[in-house]
Amino acid sequence: MKKYVIGIDFGTLSARAVLFDLKTGEEAAEAVYTYPHGVMDFGRPKYALQHPDDYLEALKTTIAGLAADPAEVAALGIDFTCCTMVAVDEKLEPLCKRFENPHAYVKLWKHHGAVEQADRFDAFAKKEEWFRIFGGSSSSEWLFPKIMETLDEAPEVFDATYRFMEVADWLSWRMTGRETHNASMAGLKNHWSKEYGYPDNEFLKKVHPGLGGIVGTKVSAVVNSVDETAGVLNECGAAMTGLLPGTPVALPMVDAHAPLAALNIVGEGEMLVVIGTSTCHIINTKHPATVPGITAYVQDGMIPGFYTYESGQAGAGDCFDWFVHHCVPASYTAEAEERGMNIHALLREKAMRLKPGRNRLVALDWWSGNRSVLKNDNLTGMILGLTMQTKPEEIYRALIEATAYGTRRIIENYEEHGIPVTDICAAGGIARKDPMLMQIYADVTGREFRVARTGQAAARGSALYAAVAAGVCRDITEAAEKYARPDAERYTPDPGAAEIYEALYREYKKLHDYFGLENRVMERLDEIAGRAE
Amino acid sequence: MKKYVIGIDFGTLSARAVLFDLKTGEEAAEAVYTYPHGVMDFGRPKYALQHPDDYLEALKTTIAGLAADPAEVAALGIDFTCCTMVAVDEKLEPLCKRFENPHAYVKLWKHHGAVEQADRFDAFAKKEEWFRIFGGSSSSEWLFPKIMETLDEAPEVFDATYRFMEVADWLSWRMTGRETHNASMAGLKNHWSKEYGYPDNEFLKKVHPGLGGIVGTKVSAVVNSVDETAGVLNECGAAMTGLLPGTPVALPMVDAHAPLAALNIVGEGEMLVVIGTSTCHIINTKHPATVPGITAYVQDGMIPGFYTYESGQAGAGDCFDWFVHHCVPASYTAEAEERGMNIHALLREKAMRLKPGRNRLVALDWWSGNRSVLKNDNLTGMILGLTMQTKPEEIYRALIEATAYGTRRIIENYEEHGIPVTDICAAGGIARKDPMLMQIYADVTGREFRVARTGQAAARGSALYAAVAAGVCRDITEAAEKYARPDAERYTPDPGAAEIYEALYREYKKLHDYFGLENRVMERLDEIAGRAE
Repeated sequence: MKKYVIGIDFGTLSARAVLFDLKTGEEAAEAVYTYPHGVMDFGRPKYALQHPDDYLEALKTTIAGLAADPAEVAALGIDFTCCTMVAVDEKLEPLCKRFENPHAYVKLWKHHGAVEQADRFDAFAKKEEWFRIFGGSSSSEWLFPKIMETLDEAPEVFDATYRFMEVADWLSWRMTGRETHNASMAGLKNHWSKEYGYPDNEFLKKVHPGLGGIVGTKVSAVVNSVDETAGVLNECGAAMTGLLPGTPVALPMVDAHAPLAALNIVGEGEMLVVIGTSTCHIINTKHPATVPGITAYVQDGMIPGFYTYESGQAGAGDCFDWFVHHCVPASYTAEAEERGMNIHALLREKAMRLKPGRNRLVALDWWSGNRSVLKNDNLTGMILGLTMQTKPEEIYRALIEATAYGTRRIIENYEEHGIPVTDICAAGGIARKDPMLMQIYADVTGREFRVARTGQAAARGSALYAAVAAGVCRDITEAAEKYARPDAERYTPDPGAAEIYEALYREYKKLHDYFGLENRVMERLDEIAGRAE
Repeated sequence: MKKYVIGIDFGTLSARAVLFDLKTGEEAAEAVYTYPHGVMDFGRPKYALQHPDDYLEALKTTIAGLAADPAEVAALGIDFTCCTMVAVDEKLEPLCKRFENPHAYVKLWKHHGAVEQADRFDAFAKKEEWFRIFGGSSSSEWLFPKIMETLDEAPEVFDATYRFMEVADWLSWRMTGRETHNASMAGLKNHWSKEYGYPDNEFLKKVHPGLGGIVGTKVSAVVNSVDETAGVLNECGAAMTGLLPGTPVALPMVDAHAPLAALNIVGEGEMLVVIGTSTCHIINTKHPATVPGITAYVQDGMIPGFYTYESGQAGAGDCFDWFVHHCVPASYTAEAEERGMNIHALLREKAMRLKPGRNRLVALDWWSGNRSVLKNDNLTGMILGLTMQTKPEEIYRALIEATAYGTRRIIENYEEHGIPVTDICAAGGIARKDPMLMQIYADVTGREFRVARTGQAAARGSALYAAVAAGVCRDITEAAEKYARPDAERYTPDPGAAEIYEALYREYKKLHDYFGLENRVMERLDEIAGRAE
């Protein structure tokens, strides 16, 4: 048996690779590569674009950084943000090589330029039976709205496109020479389901005449389930990775779902909460139910035999970063510098000293819209309770609390619709780095949160899918159990804090329903801004 | 005839004096003194205290700064913030000389420690006929709640107090040796009215047993109307001011109302809007009406023959300053420094480039509560519409817009209750310094705003009351007309902007009513914070 598999997690701003030792189950090496182009907006609000060269460079650089003997690498697995869409020509070259147009670049998962298109799609989809699988509404983040936006805004790019696809599958294709489309992404954010396939071309033609016939042409009709692999590295893939030709490549996995395997969250009602730039809530069940306001559920897409549900909050770390960049005064920046601290660490230190409820604030965490339960990209953030005495750390804490309320709302939504949440495990950079945040999550939800020890849960999960591709394990459930590691931290609710947060959550819930369902002022402000242009 | 009169305006952070030339009607000299103790909170939220020595020093220093021959000074007039309460002993010494207790210091107008006491007072006052004069509710800023707070929190200070009184009247008393209590302050914020006098001791005893008998003892029962004077300087007053004994002293005037005379706003339906730390809206009418949510109206308190109504917004400049101190990032501070600009000027420059409605934000301007029309100190600020793209200057503009919406709500409230607003003149530091703000006010209200040329409208108004005290003019109306000056700036609504703001104001109004009347979350957050202590 070869000694290692490699897993690479392609995140929003960087890629992280691990060299996974199949014998010890430990990470023998790690490597990180930050995308030089980062996230580009071309000066347009709501745009979030990336350069595809960054991924190719990340692939090569991180694997080289692991310094493994290629002969000892049994397989490669990757996970990726989703839906992160690339438009390519027949030679699989991204269209941004030919067009100096924002729509020819990679549309990152959090590109929100297709709000109008998502609304148009939904107006038709609401009548379709298959739409309940997607929680009864789409997001501007998904594949078809993103394609429609290109069709509307840059028809020349649309016309020149051979395939619109997930970047993850594009990388696999380039590495193996074989076209595959992984079910996890197709099912979550491309409107595909095992039961119904893709929306049919008749339906798509109604949504937009230009979309008619797209499935089977610009969008591949073939989707590959979780028990398949992407293939093996060809010569080109070997050159791209520095690995040997013939090395098996696992089918890519949605980045937020890759940790399921790494954290051994493969049982009924077990929930994974990944807290990073945004937050994902993932839960496995064998008993599908219709839950409104979820992202989608995928059958046999992540764990064989399970339906995997996803919900999410569009902003978490993003929103805390916004605050740090736009609202923290010079005196705090100076204090952080003087003490050699990160500004987040300084705010956390100050916010930790505050007792629950003492900031007198409640916020709605919708800086990037509400992805679940209201599922409305046009919702926006709100802070209430500001006084002349309000301090930056109080607002910072209120933002964290708002994301905790949002998570509680999502948990309750599952339980209200027949999927009991039996256990919660948190992962993601913020979950590991911010014990205050985790304690707030426990206090707000009144539940225990386990936090995974590894900082590489996604890359480690991808490595486990690679172990299956290499034939080391029979399936991902076996791999998850075999390589399961004990968790490091447990956060249990403090009864006093939980009581205060119970009262605050009631206020949040009331405002959530008022601004989400009753007073549509957030959407009207956007309309008024449109009139003012 | 002597050549000059002196007017001194005692503001929140400083006192400004003018030497007024009775022949030319021009200010021959000006002087400013900033209070060394500023505003003190003794580490307690909602507290705003001052040191009485600062006023004595200001009196002496500013008059000296005018460098006038005392023999040429015909009279002195002062105006003061209100209700700014001092507790003194029989020798007129402030109690802070004897007690190291926050309640022994001067309670500044914006001291908000007596919220609970104001609520208790109102619970009883609601049944009283006289209460309609005060808009049907009190403020924690007023005299009786402030006294009640001392009674509750520092009974030893209460017991030792000979008089609770406006600082303005205390200064007059010390300068002239004669006790007077000006009707403008008594009528506006001390629950006194020409019709009913003070609340009777039977009523006060019901509110708190300790208050029984207070009127006529710790609170003087005598109130002096606008056609009287405070007296003349005695030896002590001459030493305090550097002026000659026998110099007439006008009865003090509420600082926000002093500009009425200076700006010749003495006609029916004419409104003065003073925009500074907070905002006052003052309107004169000969036809009294019951207007809910006003501060109060005073008969013959400011202009003989007129009822003068006051409304207000508890925060304006205060709130913009809060933003600058707590929410402006280091990069902006650095840019302002580099360009040698004030940070407000930099934000204004950036905010001016934004078109109305393009910030997609709406805020509620209640950082210090709502003084009119809702009249609720427990309300708090809110910002709605925040996204990852929101910039500091967009929030800054939203705060300015929120104060403009608040002013429009107040204007509409008068008109809805039978007092048409025929003309608006703005004064105050912010009105003169910020043309962008004034244009927003014009656009939001759809009305023309004149802005007074003088930066010393209050001090100049006090000088005119001094001219009456000196016998130079028959009454303040004659003085106002005689010395009226043309206005410098006129802001007229831009039709396009007014249309956008019409739509935004509807959103503000809806949120104003929701959070002011329907969802009392802001008050509940305060209760929850109390439980968390």
